[in-house]
Amino acid sequence: MQHDINHAAGNHAAGNRLDQWADHYAARTAGMSASEIRALFSVASRPEVVSLAGGMPNLAALPMDAVGHLAADLLGDHGTTALQYGSGQGDPLLREAILDVMELEQISGHADDVVVTTGSQQALDLVTRIFIDPGDVIVAEAPSYVGALGVFKAYQADVVHVPMDADGLVPELLDATLGRLAGEGRKVKFLYTVPNFHNPAGVTLSPERRPQVLQIARRHGVLVLEDNPYGLLGFDSGPLPALRSLDPEQVVYLGSFSKTFAPGLRVGWALAPHAVRDKLVLASESAILCPSAFSQALVRRYLEQHDWRHQIKLYRELYRERRDAMLAALEDLMPRSSWTVPDGGFYVWLQLPEGLDAKAMLPRAVTERVAYVPGTAFYAGRTDGADDATHDGRSHMRLSYCYPEPERIREGVRRLAAVVDGELTVRGTFGADATTGGIPGVPGRQGVESPGPDLQ
Amino acid sequence: MQHDINHAAGNHAAGNRLDQWADHYAARTAGMSASEIRALFSVASRPEVVSLAGGMPNLAALPMDAVGHLAADLLGDHGTTALQYGSGQGDPLLREAILDVMELEQISGHADDVVVTTGSQQALDLVTRIFIDPGDVIVAEAPSYVGALGVFKAYQADVVHVPMDADGLVPELLDATLGRLAGEGRKVKFLYTVPNFHNPAGVTLSPERRPQVLQIARRHGVLVLEDNPYGLLGFDSGPLPALRSLDPEQVVYLGSFSKTFAPGLRVGWALAPHAVRDKLVLASESAILCPSAFSQALVRRYLEQHDWRHQIKLYRELYRERRDAMLAALEDLMPRSSWTVPDGGFYVWLQLPEGLDAKAMLPRAVTERVAYVPGTAFYAGRTDGADDATHDGRSHMRLSYCYPEPERIREGVRRLAAVVDGELTVRGTFGADATTGGIPGVPGRQGVESPGPDLQ
Repeated sequence: MQHDINHAAGNHAAGNRLDQWADHYAARTAGMSASEIRALFSVASRPEVVSLAGGMPNLAALPMDAVGHLAADLLGDHGTTALQYGSGQGDPLLREAILDVMELEQISGHADDVVVTTGSQQALDLVTRIFIDPGDVIVAEAPSYVGALGVFKAYQADVVHVPMDADGLVPELLDATLGRLAGEGRKVKFLYTVPNFHNPAGVTLSPERRPQVLQIARRHGVLVLEDNPYGLLGFDSGPLPALRSLDPEQVVYLGSFSKTFAPGLRVGWALAPHAVRDKLVLASESAILCPSAFSQALVRRYLEQHDWRHQIKLYRELYRERRDAMLAALEDLMPRSSWTVPDGGFYVWLQLPEGLDAKAMLPRAVTERVAYVPGTAFYAGRTDGADDATHDGRSHMRLSYCYPEPERIREGVRRLAAVVDGELTVRGTFGADATTGGIPGVPGRQGVESPGPDLQ
Repeated sequence: MQHDINHAAGNHAAGNRLDQWADHYAARTAGMSASEIRALFSVASRPEVVSLAGGMPNLAALPMDAVGHLAADLLGDHGTTALQYGSGQGDPLLREAILDVMELEQISGHADDVVVTTGSQQALDLVTRIFIDPGDVIVAEAPSYVGALGVFKAYQADVVHVPMDADGLVPELLDATLGRLAGEGRKVKFLYTVPNFHNPAGVTLSPERRPQVLQIARRHGVLVLEDNPYGLLGFDSGPLPALRSLDPEQVVYLGSFSKTFAPGLRVGWALAPHAVRDKLVLASESAILCPSAFSQALVRRYLEQHDWRHQIKLYRELYRERRDAMLAALEDLMPRSSWTVPDGGFYVWLQLPEGLDAKAMLPRAVTERVAYVPGTAFYAGRTDGADDATHDGRSHMRLSYCYPEPERIREGVRRLAAVVDGELTVRGTFGADATTGGIPGVPGRQGVESPGPDLQ
C-alpha cells in the first residue's frame, strides 16, 4: 500500500505513475509508515485467531444502558451546547472534574493548566509538535509505546532508548545517556516515560526511583513527558504518586479516559506547566479547532452521575483475572521463556528462548491462530548506541491479556507454546538453556523475576 | 497570555523566568499565535453584545430529543463497538454514507478513498502535514478562512493570496500568480480554495470558472484543496458541481457535518486520490489513533434513520431568513459601505467607507455592544506581492448572520452603523464618496454588485 516517495520522476502529466503527487510530499511524510501492529490487525481480528496482540480495553464491565440514558438526558437538557463548538482548551467543568481523577495519584493542579485532547494520542502529537525540530533528541525507555514512537518519527525526532529493569527506567543509565548526549552536543528536548504498568514492558517505575529520575532530568534541563493511561489500573495496591505530583514544573502529564471509561469517546488530556499549556492550546486549535463538546459533556455527566471509582474497581478486577490467567498459562506451558510480571495494566513482555526471533516467527504463529506483537515494534531502530544495537526487541514479544476471555488466553498461550516448541525443534536448540530472561538493555543484570503464583 | 519564546536566557534553574522551557520550543511554535477571532471571543460572548463575529451554526432547528433517542439506542444496541477504538481511516459504513452526501454535489467516489477526521479542521491539518515543508508555497484566495491560515502558518508555509471578485477566484490572476511563482523557482504545493459561499467573502466560484481553475492548476502541476463546509447551504438553487467532481485526481475534497448536522460531534472527512489517502490515514493515526467511534456511529445512525435532507432544508431556510435580515439592515442603515451578497452560507464581507480601519474601530464597536471580525484576520500578512501589499483587509470586516435572531441582527447592524457614522464624523470625511466597494485585490475591477433587495 505504501509507495516509495523518493524515486518519482518529474513529469506531472504522466498517467502511468502510481502517485502523481509523489514528488510533492513533505520530508516528514517519509517517516510515516504503517506500524507492525497496524499491519497485524487485519489478521489478528479474524475470529479463529486468539489475539494477544491488540490493546483494546474490555468494555464488558461497562453499563451501556446507563451510559445511553446519560447521553439521551444530556441531549434533551443541553443539546444545543453539547452539539456546538466549544473551547479549544476543553470544557472548564470537565477540566475541573479531571482534577478529581488526578488527585488519586496525588496530583494537585489547576483546571486552567489542563488541555482536553482527542485521546491522549493527540496530546502526544501536540507536545511533540511544539517541542521537536527535525533532528532533536527524545529519550525514551527501551522498549517504548509504539504509538509514541510513530509520532516522534513523524516529527523527525531522533529517539535514544534507555534500558529498564523490573523497577522501570534505570536512573544511572538515564544519567549516563543524558551525559553522553550533552557531550555530543545533542539537543535533548524531553524524556518520554510510561511509569505505570508499562506498554509494552509491563513494569512500573518504583517509588524510590521516581524522585531520582526527576532530579536527573532537572539537572540535565530535560522536560519529562509522563504518559499515564494505566495508572489507576493497579491490581495489588493503590496508585503510586505521579511524577507530576513530585515536580510540577518539570513534567507534562498525559491522562486518558480510554482505559478507565471508554476509548470510543476519544477524551484524554494534558496537564502542563502554564507557559507550555498556552502553546498546547494554540497547537490544538490549529489541529482540530476544539475537542468534541459532546464527548466531553458525556464524560462529565458520567463522572458526576455514575460511580466511576467503582467502575474502575470493576475494570481492575476484570484485568487482574486475565493477568492471572496469562501468568498461570505461561508458567504451565512456556517453561523455556521468561516474562515480566505486571502489577496492573494490559501487558506482559516475554523473552523467547535464545536464538528465536519473534518477528520471523509471527507468520507461523498466525497460521497456528495466535497473534502477538513482535518486540521490534517498540524500538525506534537506532543503531548508533552500543546498548541499542544488540537489544532491538527481536527476541521479545508483547502479550496483551486485556481483551480475551481467560480460557481464550490460556488457549492462545497453548498455541504460542506449540509454535515456540516447533521453532526450537527446527533449530535444534531444544536442549539449550534459554531461560536467562530480562529486559533488553540491562547488561549483566537479571532484571525480571521468574514468574511466581502471583494471584492475590 | 502569550510569552515571547525568543528572548529567554539559558539558565534552566532560575525560578524567576516566566517559562523555563522557553528555549526548548520547536521553530514552528513561533508561528502559533492566537488569532484575532480567538482574542475576540471572550468579549463577543457577553450577552449584551450582538455578535456578528462568530461562525457558530444555529442548532435551534435540530430535534434534540430525536438525536438523544438515536444516541441511547445506539449505546443499547452496539455500545461495546461504539465506545471502542476503531479504524484509523474511519468507520467503513459511515464512509459509504458520506458518498451519498457528496453525491448531491455530483461527486462519485469510493468509500475506500474517504478518511474520516475530527472535524474538517483536522483534515486541513493532515493535508498540510503531508505536503508542506517549511518555506513551501500555498496559494489561497484573498481573503481566506482564518483557521486554514493558522494551520498553514503552523507548518511554516508561505501563503500567497490570489484575488477574488463576485464570481470567486479570478482564473487569469491565479494563472499569472502561479506563473510568477514558477518563474521565481518557488515550490507551490497546493491551491487552497473555498468555492461555495466563501468564508469570509460570501461569494461563490461560478460554474464557468470551475473547469478553468482546474485546468490552470493541472497545467502548473498544483494540487487543489477544495474546502467545502457550506456547499449544501445554498439559498437560491441546488448545489453546484464540486471541483472534485470535475477532476478527481487533481483535488483533495474536504467535507464536514458541522454545518449540516452538528459541530459538537467533530466529524468531517477528506476524499483524496488513492495514494494521498494512504498518507492521510497514516498521518491521522499518528495524530489521534482513530476518530471517535461514538461520534461516527451517531452520525451514521442519524443519516440512516433521520430525514437529513429535510434537516438541511430547515437549516437553509433558517440561514436564508437571517441573510435577508442582514442585507435589509445593511441596505437601510449603512448607505456608505458596500458588501457582498451571499447565495448561501454564513457570511457577508463588508467594505467600510474609505479611510476607515475595521481593526482600529473594533474596540469602539465592542463598547457599543456589537462585534465583528476585522478583515485583516483573513490575510496571511505577506507584503512581497504588489497586490497584497495594498489589500490586507484593513478596510473590511466579516459579518456573520448565522447565529443571532433576525431582530438581533438588525440591532447589531444599527449599532455598527452608529459606530461607522461616529468614525466618519471624527475623521471629518463624512462628505466623501466612500461607496466604491469591492473585494480587495482586484485592480481596476468593480467586483461586487451594489446590494439590492435580494430577498427571494
